[in-house]
Amino acid sequence: MPQQNSPAGQSGDFPPFAQRHLISIADLKQHEIIDLLDRAEQMIAISRQERKSLPTLSGKTQINLFFEPSTRTQSSFEIAGKRLGALVVNMSVKTSSVSKGETLIDTAATLNAMRPDVLVVRHSAAGAVELLSQKVGCSVVNAGDGAHEHPTQALLDALTIRNHKGTLAGLTVAICGDIANSRVARSNLLLLGALHVRTRVIAPRNLLPAGIENLATEVFTDMEAGLKGADVVMMLRLQHERANGKMIPSVREYYRFYGLDEAKLAYAKSDAIVMHPGPMNRGVEIDPAIADGSRSVITDQVEMGVAVRMAVLDALLPARNDA
Amino acid sequence: MPQQNSPAGQSGDFPPFAQRHLISIADLKQHEIIDLLDRAEQMIAISRQERKSLPTLSGKTQINLFFEPSTRTQSSFEIAGKRLGALVVNMSVKTSSVSKGETLIDTAATLNAMRPDVLVVRHSAAGAVELLSQKVGCSVVNAGDGAHEHPTQALLDALTIRNHKGTLAGLTVAICGDIANSRVARSNLLLLGALHVRTRVIAPRNLLPAGIENLATEVFTDMEAGLKGADVVMMLRLQHERANGKMIPSVREYYRFYGLDEAKLAYAKSDAIVMHPGPMNRGVEIDPAIADGSRSVITDQVEMGVAVRMAVLDALLPARNDA
Amino acid sequence: MPQQNSPAGQSGDFPPFAQRHLISIADLKQHEIIDLLDRAEQMIAISRQERKSLPTLSGKTQINLFFEPSTRTQSSFEIAGKRLGALVVNMSVKTSSVSKGETLIDTAATLNAMRPDVLVVRHSAAGAVELLSQKVGCSVVNAGDGAHEHPTQALLDALTIRNHKGTLAGLTVAICGDIANSRVARSNLLLLGALHVRTRVIAPRNLLPAGIENLATEVFTDMEAGLKGADVVMMLRLQHERANGKMIPSVREYYRFYGLDEAKLAYAKSDAIVMHPGPMNRGVEIDPAIADGSRSVITDQVEMGVAVRMAVLDALLPARNDA
Repeated sequence: MPQQNSPAGQSGDFPPFAQRHLISIADLKQHEIIDLLDRAEQMIAISRQERKSLPTLSGKTQINLFFEPSTRTQSSFEIAGKRLGALVVNMSVKTSSVSKGETLIDTAATLNAMRPDVLVVRHSAAGAVELLSQKVGCSVVNAGDGAHEHPTQALLDALTIRNHKGTLAGLTVAICGDIANSRVARSNLLLLGALHVRTRVIAPRNLLPAGIENLATEVFTDMEAGLKGADVVMMLRLQHERANGKMIPSVREYYRFYGLDEAKLAYAKSDAIVMHPGPMNRGVEIDPAIADGSRSVITDQVEMGVAVRMAVLDALLPARNDA
Repeated sequence: MPQQNSPAGQSGDFPPFAQRHLISIADLKQHEIIDLLDRAEQMIAISRQERKSLPTLSGKTQINLFFEPSTRTQSSFEIAGKRLGALVVNMSVKTSSVSKGETLIDTAATLNAMRPDVLVVRHSAAGAVELLSQKVGCSVVNAGDGAHEHPTQALLDALTIRNHKGTLAGLTVAICGDIANSRVARSNLLLLGALHVRTRVIAPRNLLPAGIENLATEVFTDMEAGLKGADVVMMLRLQHERANGKMIPSVREYYRFYGLDEAKLAYAKSDAIVMHPGPMNRGVEIDPAIADGSRSVITDQVEMGVAVRMAVLDALLPARNDA
Repeated sequence: MPQQNSPAGQSGDFPPFAQRHLISIADLKQHEIIDLLDRAEQMIAISRQERKSLPTLSGKTQINLFFEPSTRTQSSFEIAGKRLGALVVNMSVKTSSVSKGETLIDTAATLNAMRPDVLVVRHSAAGAVELLSQKVGCSVVNAGDGAHEHPTQALLDALTIRNHKGTLAGLTVAICGDIANSRVARSNLLLLGALHVRTRVIAPRNLLPAGIENLATEVFTDMEAGLKGADVVMMLRLQHERANGKMIPSVREYYRFYGLDEAKLAYAKSDAIVMHPGPMNRGVEIDPAIADGSRSVITDQVEMGVAVRMAVLDALLPARNDA
């Protein structure tokens, strides 16, 4: 790391990152994933320092363009950019130009003309972020697009697991809940698959997407079978709109069969860690006692989130400069 | 304090501040109140300079977490933090994670994991800010919690009085209006009491809280008696929701008996100053001619607000580093 | 200008700018308009650099006060200020103190007391920004006030034309659409008139304001006649609220007679450029194929917007310091 020796502190002994955008985990090679996790490791140290900054993005402009509100994710990217010295501009597009009928592409062209260095984009439609990335001259980071991907979430989850388990090799990770509608599940399965980690999904049959057996090592509809021998239990948020009899009978029924409580967690390994991307529905997909218990690493995930986003911004922006 | 010898830093020879949080005026010792007012004095000078910054919070992260909107107070804290070089992130929590059912404590845990140095929190429930402060590793500043406290308002009011009167000693301060529901009144009474300033409250009987005689030196229901001999007249905002016959008969009736006009102000000392925490209801609790008149120090209060908040941030953050 | 000899500063040899505010193009002398365009030229270069900053506003405070939402314009001013090193604070005044009944003047007094160096203000009422500027000690930039003026839009339009045509001298600029209700049209006509550029307006009779012949060189109600020989075709946004039979029969009818398509654009010079202040109503005032075509300079206008706003902030703030 150059910041140890150099006064200016440009982060360090990493080869140039070949990607210009981060749209999908599926676009990353194994060594690129490892590179981002290693960079993030250094960023954790910076965020824990007294003076939490590394000015590698000084003089650069980052626009957070959120078509769908997300306080957590936007703040995490905002803090990441600011700790790297970027000028960060937030745009929550709701009551603004989009409501005046401006198209996604017009918005992209407009923002691109302001010469940002990176756009961080969340959109409710799968594919919208990739489409936008094709229309702009700057780097684009996908902060979640519909049910498609949420790549920084998968990276932060991998970093959290690696930090708690020492390695990802040889682990079994069980992902439980609404797999069909979850960009978090999809990005995690792609990332863990690329690193040859054994993955399981556990969900009621109608919350499993077609073709899931191509993404996960094993597929279960029963928590006992699915959690047996798992090193990591990753719970997903149940969207309330699924719960009114459309996809599942009731929240109570869901909790009984798929909510993580002490009894179900006992099926996993005795040192299994519990994860959740947040925000949690306590008492729906997870028992509050588990969420706040000693095996939960949920707040660590949030800390890793800032570090991973610093790493992604740091990796993408010099890559762009070489272009 | 590292800045005292640097040409950039004007902030002076203050001993380390023993508090980690600023939740309540009731937690402060007399010398700590004086220390904050003295620090704020120096911050006024910085805000009046051509170059309004002092980088004592450089590389630190300040999150303004407002569960209740307040443009004025949030901007005042934002400007204060930015003038000290902090990375400032605003979070207005309304349509976001809280509306998804996330608890106050989950929000606190999430934000804490992003490793801020200070959280500035406003909440509609008394006690919420203190509860939150117990769950985080950073400093917390109460920017108003329900009808409980608004400590930086009381500090800026005291600073304004001291600047106009030269001293607080020997003064009589009359606070008029909806005492029962006012965190501003409560924090002011605690602060002025700690400095042995003579305080009076004036309100209709049903807008006086139980036990008010323990907080104020004297209690009045009549403006003439209450204002007689006062050096400072502090008017409170009447919340419109009190005015529809529930607590008071009508706005017109309220103005007649408790609104500050020339006739009533004549009861106070001839050099009495007029204060209001803003935003004002002109013609409800105060005559516009008084609000804009030569005895009003209302805009001075706003300027003192930025200075006091700079002082509080400056005092709390080094204290935390010593911990 | 103090930065001209410093290695950090790239902005050039401009005489002090005599204005303190930018409220109206009508207040500017010809040489002041040219000065702002020349300064903006240098700012374009800075925004295209790897490191997009020039710290001439370092330590200064800019408040963006938008009483009417505009994501584009606010972001453009925010990026401009931040690239110059200012502390930028956004205030969207909707659900805040104004909704509590605070007057425009109280808001101005409050913000002024926080000692900003510049207020950037948008308001739905013509004249509100000028009124506000009379009550504050800092510089004020009009970011659009009702149907009155939008001076930075006219400056960015002139800069875009000058960059594409090499000069403004001898050109004919046709402005088409809802002239009566457009601050963009008004500011453009004033600016182009001050530089002796030939201007035309084209609109249905009821969308032409009284006295328009004093602002524009020529007035047309027919696109063929109005576009003949034009070097620049500037389309205006049709506000939807005009289109429901009140001012114009229907959107379809409007597009047929006044929407810019290939057939109508053929009346203009073969090298005419097409402009629009955005956001566009595609298919209402402009054919999408024209908007995205080779003659459109619409995204260039957005880029010039950031540069012009940097120039305006850079010009006004030293002027204020001399005062």
